[in-house]
Amino acid sequence: MSILVVGSVALDTVETPFGRADDALGGSATFFSAAASLFGPVQLVGVVGSDYPTGALSFLAERGVDLSGLEQAEGESFRWSGVYSFDLNSRETLETRLGVFAEFQPKIPEGFRDAEWVFLGNIDPELQLNVLEQVHAPKFVACDTMNLWIDIRRDALMRLLGRVDLLLVNDGEARQLSGEHNLSLAARWILQRGPRYLVIKKGEHGAVLFTPHSVFFAPGFPLEDVFDPTGAGDAFAGGFMGYLAQCGRTDEGDLRRAVIYGSVLGSFAVEKFSVERFRDLSADEIEDRVRLFREMTVFELPVDAGV
Amino acid sequence: MSILVVGSVALDTVETPFGRADDALGGSATFFSAAASLFGPVQLVGVVGSDYPTGALSFLAERGVDLSGLEQAEGESFRWSGVYSFDLNSRETLETRLGVFAEFQPKIPEGFRDAEWVFLGNIDPELQLNVLEQVHAPKFVACDTMNLWIDIRRDALMRLLGRVDLLLVNDGEARQLSGEHNLSLAARWILQRGPRYLVIKKGEHGAVLFTPHSVFFAPGFPLEDVFDPTGAGDAFAGGFMGYLAQCGRTDEGDLRRAVIYGSVLGSFAVEKFSVERFRDLSADEIEDRVRLFREMTVFELPVDAGV
Repeated sequence: MSILVVGSVALDTVETPFGRADDALGGSATFFSAAASLFGPVQLVGVVGSDYPTGALSFLAERGVDLSGLEQAEGESFRWSGVYSFDLNSRETLETRLGVFAEFQPKIPEGFRDAEWVFLGNIDPELQLNVLEQVHAPKFVACDTMNLWIDIRRDALMRLLGRVDLLLVNDGEARQLSGEHNLSLAARWILQRGPRYLVIKKGEHGAVLFTPHSVFFAPGFPLEDVFDPTGAGDAFAGGFMGYLAQCGRTDEGDLRRAVIYGSVLGSFAVEKFSVERFRDLSADEIEDRVRLFREMTVFELPVDAGV
Repeated sequence: MSILVVGSVALDTVETPFGRADDALGGSATFFSAAASLFGPVQLVGVVGSDYPTGALSFLAERGVDLSGLEQAEGESFRWSGVYSFDLNSRETLETRLGVFAEFQPKIPEGFRDAEWVFLGNIDPELQLNVLEQVHAPKFVACDTMNLWIDIRRDALMRLLGRVDLLLVNDGEARQLSGEHNLSLAARWILQRGPRYLVIKKGEHGAVLFTPHSVFFAPGFPLEDVFDPTGAGDAFAGGFMGYLAQCGRTDEGDLRRAVIYGSVLGSFAVEKFSVERFRDLSADEIEDRVRLFREMTVFELPVDAGV
C-alpha cells in the first residue's frame, strides 16, 4: 500500500568533521521518501521554490515516489545549513531560510486522499491537522514534531495527538512535551493524550516503542564511521512506515519489526551525506542489517539455555 | 563456585532529590557482594577503619559473604559524600576521605587463593596486579577502573589489561582510556590491548558486551522511580559475575545472560539508598525482571513471523 507523506523538501548545506555538502537534497519528506520507497510506493506532498533542482528528485520518482503533490512555487526553496561538532552529537544551525515553505498550505491531490498510511512530517501542527481533514479514512497515521511547535503551537499539537495512532519524537522532544525528565513517565504522559503508540528516538542510544502494555528497545547500530547525522530521524520514520505499509498490519510484532527497520534505515542514512546512501541501497543490505540487529540483541533465558 | 572480590568498603553520605542517607554502607566491594551473594558465595577482601559499623555487614555474612578478608585497621574508614542533580544524571562529590583505604594493601587469605572467579573492583591498578600475584589459577578475572587511574596509572593499567579476561567500565572511561569517542572504535582499541571481553556500561542507556566477534546490547531498565544511582555499576558487576560463577561457564550465551543479570541487579540497586534493596531481594524478583528484559528486546525476523 502507498504511503502519503507531507513534510519539507529542502536544500541542506552541511559541514561535518568529514566534509561538506552544499545545497544537497534535504528535508523531512525527502529523507522519509528515500527510505520508505525502498519498501513500496510513496505519495509526497510538499513545496519547493522556483530555484529547486527538481530533476535531482528523479531517482525517487523512478522507484515509486509520486511527486505530483510536490508544488513548485515562485520564490526561494527552504534552505538549512548547519555544522556538526567533532563527535557528531551536537550541531549548530548556521542559517534557516524558510522561503516558500513559510507559506506552505498542503493541498492533498484527489488521488492521494484515499491513503491508508499517512506520515505527517515535522510541520506546523495546524497544517498537520489540516492534512488529516483532507484524507478520507487513513488506517494508520503517524506524526513527528519539534521543539518549536511544542513551544508555540502546543494547543494545536495536543489536538493533533488526539487524532494520530503514533507519535515519533526524540527524547528531548518527549521530555519537553510532557514536562517529565524520566522517559518512562514522559511516555505514559504522552500515551494518555491520544496516540496509541509512541516511538522515542534516542540517537546513538537507539529507539524505544511504547504501547499501552509494553516497551520495546532497539539499540543504536554500532557504526564505526558516522558521516552525517542529518535526516536520520526522517529515514527512521521512512523505514518504520515503509515496513508497516508493506506488511499491511500493525500488530505488536509488526510494530517491533518496524522499529528495527526504522533503526536500520536510520543507520544507513548517516553513512553518507544527504540521501546518497539510499540511491543504490539494496533489499539484501537492509535484510542483512535487520539480522544483525537481532544478533546484537538476542539472548536465551536460563531455562531455555538449559542452565 | 565462590567469587573473590577486592575493592572498597566505605561509608557513603548521599543526597538525591528524594532524600538523604548518612554514613550508609557503600563501596565497590560492598555493592558487588550484596548483588553477587544472591547467586552464591563471595569472598571479600578490603579494609575498614576502627570506626566502621562492621555489625551492619552481618546480613552479607549471613548469606554467604566470607568477610574474613576484611581487615579492620586503626584509623578512619573510607568516606564519600555526594549530591545528585535533579535528573540523577550527574553528581557532585562533596568530600572524599580515603582514611585507611589510602594505605590499603590487599592481603588475600590463604583460603581465598584458589578462587576461580575474581573481580578486581576499582582500586589502584598496581594493587589489582598485586592481587593477581596472590591468586593461583583463576578461571575468569574481571576488573573495573576509573578516570583517576587512567590518568595517573596508565602503565600499570595497561599491564593489568593484558592479564584480565574482561574489563568492565562506563562509556566515559572507555573513551578516555582509548582516546576514541566512537564506542565501537573504543571497544576495538581496548580488545586489542588484552581483555577477551569488554562490557561498557552506559547508565540509563544500558550496557554493551563486546567480544572479538560480536556485540550484544542490553537496554537500561525503564524505571519510573530512580532513587539513588550510587553503586549501580558495582551491583551490575555483582550480578554479572554472580551469574557466571553460578552457571560455571563463560560461553557467549552465558556472557550475554550475565549482562542481563548485571543489568537487573543494577536496576534494583537504584531503587533504594545504599544496599537496602538487596536485603530482601528474592530470586523470583530477579528472574521476573530477567524475563522483562527479554520481553523488552525480543522481536521476530519477518521470515519467522511469516511476513
